[in-house]
Amino acid sequence: MDITPDNEFIKNSNVPGPTKEEVRCLVMCKSQVSKADVVVDVGCGTGGLTLEFAKRAKKVYAIDKNPEALKTTFKNLQKHGLDDGVDLIEADGTEVLDNLPPFDVLMVGGSGGKMDYLLKRGYKKLKSGGRIVVTSILLETPSEATMVMKDLGMEVDVVGVSISKGKISARGTMMVARNPITIVSAKKALKN
Amino acid sequence: MDITPDNEFIKNSNVPGPTKEEVRCLVMCKSQVSKADVVVDVGCGTGGLTLEFAKRAKKVYAIDKNPEALKTTFKNLQKHGLDDGVDLIEADGTEVLDNLPPFDVLMVGGSGGKMDYLLKRGYKKLKSGGRIVVTSILLETPSEATMVMKDLGMEVDVVGVSISKGKISARGTMMVARNPITIVSAKKALKN
Amino acid sequence: MDITPDNEFIKNSNVPGPTKEEVRCLVMCKSQVSKADVVVDVGCGTGGLTLEFAKRAKKVYAIDKNPEALKTTFKNLQKHGLDDGVDLIEADGTEVLDNLPPFDVLMVGGSGGKMDYLLKRGYKKLKSGGRIVVTSILLETPSEATMVMKDLGMEVDVVGVSISKGKISARGTMMVARNPITIVSAKKALKN
Amino acid sequence: MDITPDNEFIKNSNVPGPTKEEVRCLVMCKSQVSKADVVVDVGCGTGGLTLEFAKRAKKVYAIDKNPEALKTTFKNLQKHGLDDGVDLIEADGTEVLDNLPPFDVLMVGGSGGKMDYLLKRGYKKLKSGGRIVVTSILLETPSEATMVMKDLGMEVDVVGVSISKGKISARGTMMVARNPITIVSAKKALKN
Repeated sequence: MDITPDNEFIKNSNVPGPTKEEVRCLVMCKSQVSKADVVVDVGCGTGGLTLEFAKRAKKVYAIDKNPEALKTTFKNLQKHGLDDGVDLIEADGTEVLDNLPPFDVLMVGGSGGKMDYLLKRGYKKLKSGGRIVVTSILLETPSEATMVMKDLGMEVDVVGVSISKGKISARGTMMVARNPITIVSAKKALKN
Repeated sequence: MDITPDNEFIKNSNVPGPTKEEVRCLVMCKSQVSKADVVVDVGCGTGGLTLEFAKRAKKVYAIDKNPEALKTTFKNLQKHGLDDGVDLIEADGTEVLDNLPPFDVLMVGGSGGKMDYLLKRGYKKLKSGGRIVVTSILLETPSEATMVMKDLGMEVDVVGVSISKGKISARGTMMVARNPITIVSAKKALKN
Repeated sequence: MDITPDNEFIKNSNVPGPTKEEVRCLVMCKSQVSKADVVVDVGCGTGGLTLEFAKRAKKVYAIDKNPEALKTTFKNLQKHGLDDGVDLIEADGTEVLDNLPPFDVLMVGGSGGKMDYLLKRGYKKLKSGGRIVVTSILLETPSEATMVMKDLGMEVDVVGVSISKGKISARGTMMVARNPITIVSAKKALKN
Repeated sequence: MDITPDNEFIKNSNVPGPTKEEVRCLVMCKSQVSKADVVVDVGCGTGGLTLEFAKRAKKVYAIDKNPEALKTTFKNLQKHGLDDGVDLIEADGTEVLDNLPPFDVLMVGGSGGKMDYLLKRGYKKLKSGGRIVVTSILLETPSEATMVMKDLGMEVDVVGVSISKGKISARGTMMVARNPITIVSAKKALKN
């Protein structure tokens, strides 16, 4: 279970991310991603999660409407030799989902205020047994995502995550908080 | 229960603090401070807790070895008309406790690595029924303070506090974490 | 700042609460309650917050639609000699707000799914300078309450609170988590 | 990244565990376990982490001084077809480390109060490039483990983890806290 350390990412002050190591780890678990999977990563930002999916999936579509985000994602993938197998798409997630092949994992790191539309559209293209994972630092997004997934008949897993990291100095270990993140995930039922 | 908002404090980049509103609130509760009390505030920093104690106690001794800290504490007290009734003492807490009159509350926001000595010395000067409160952002301090208070025969209350504050924007309410704080407190038994 | 310890409350297995000590403390601070205030406590449960308000306010109206809740609230008030000055009202909060005199603090611990109506109705009866405080253990309530308060033109304070309490044993201090609570509060502007 | 759901474990009321899904996930990441690795799991409890290591490592030694713990660990491994490749050892971890072959991962879920001895002894048997991971629900253990690892010249990673899980009902999603856990980990330097 190899997770790339936070300090090995190229950052971009105009783009949010990268998602911190511990959250990337938890998202990988919740997504149940494996080598046979096609992953769609909507709102890829600087590519923190894209890179972890790229290590573990067959194919990743990384989508962001911000060209700077895609540029940084590409740099991070390239730096770690993981740009093969990732398609970078400059677009609003809601506009391109329909044109993608069916996928196994829908990762939503940013919905641009269109969570309802995005999840419902994504659900249709999601293979049976596929997973949706939504991460958010906003108060509003988790309840919205939960509601939509429930409406889709999915059994929803909601996890609030508060991580603090020790900063070691001569005085002792100062615990520095990271912003709390909520991970909402669900699996599409297998066809009978 | 009037707590001064965080943004009404004068800050000083060379001095830690002020302690955030919610933690000041909890410390006031744990200290059970009242108008009859004498409070000793060791490691007062920019005076966040000093000011809250000044509102509620009869007398406060604010101690810090950093003269900048005391200057900032004084400015904050003065700004809120609370400098009467507070004595500012530039010293290491361990050096002056013996020279103070007996007190009802010992607040330790910083021990300079001498927690054991400070708490044991402080306990002797603490009136029966008096309270000790230790706050820390370090991993090591809470277990050390707990151990010393247990050694002193006190019943110890340990509270881990993680606070996040909503930052409201057009996109939604971003939850911003504050560093976790542990509050260790105990009461000196009343004499029979 | 005297907060009643958790273990001094009478509980009732059919009624939620009492609100834990640290949350009661924070709610008292956020409510800015003082001796001149009239407080309305909607969804009072076992009376944890009611009792703290009773210590600090002029008058408290404690409302719950569950008669068991009111019975337990009364027992807790009586046990601590605080039943004077508290009116217990068996009703849905939305039904009785209009019949109450104007108030300084509206505390909402439970809205029965009618947060929008309750806050808007309550806001009308809230005196200028008055405060609304909503506490919730649900994912959905804080964003709903925040939205309504923003709609009412209020400046909203959102605080996520995660508390853990040390359970001291021979092996060490086990940190036991309490369920996270979100406190949403706001003040009604003073008239010019 | 397949993590076994919490409800698929056999429990034992006399044995702590199993470690919750999210913490198992994070420990797998921190341990950097891979198919070539030999893992020693000291204080295996009901086998939550043992089972995750068994999926990912070449060989796991699961150690506990409580025979009930080993019995439950075995049942959980067997239930998931993972008992091959796991040796169960009824012993105090400090007594058997010396008799084991060199290992890549030392997992310490319980030290029986002998953290210092256990980590120092374990460090000697740890291969260069090997990892130590300590998890704890106690206030004291993380600072002790951090200190020992620092003494051993290791660069220590300290992570405080607070997880809450959504319990979905008709009223909404109640966030239920899990006890906070601290994960302390470090890597043994590669030989030059």
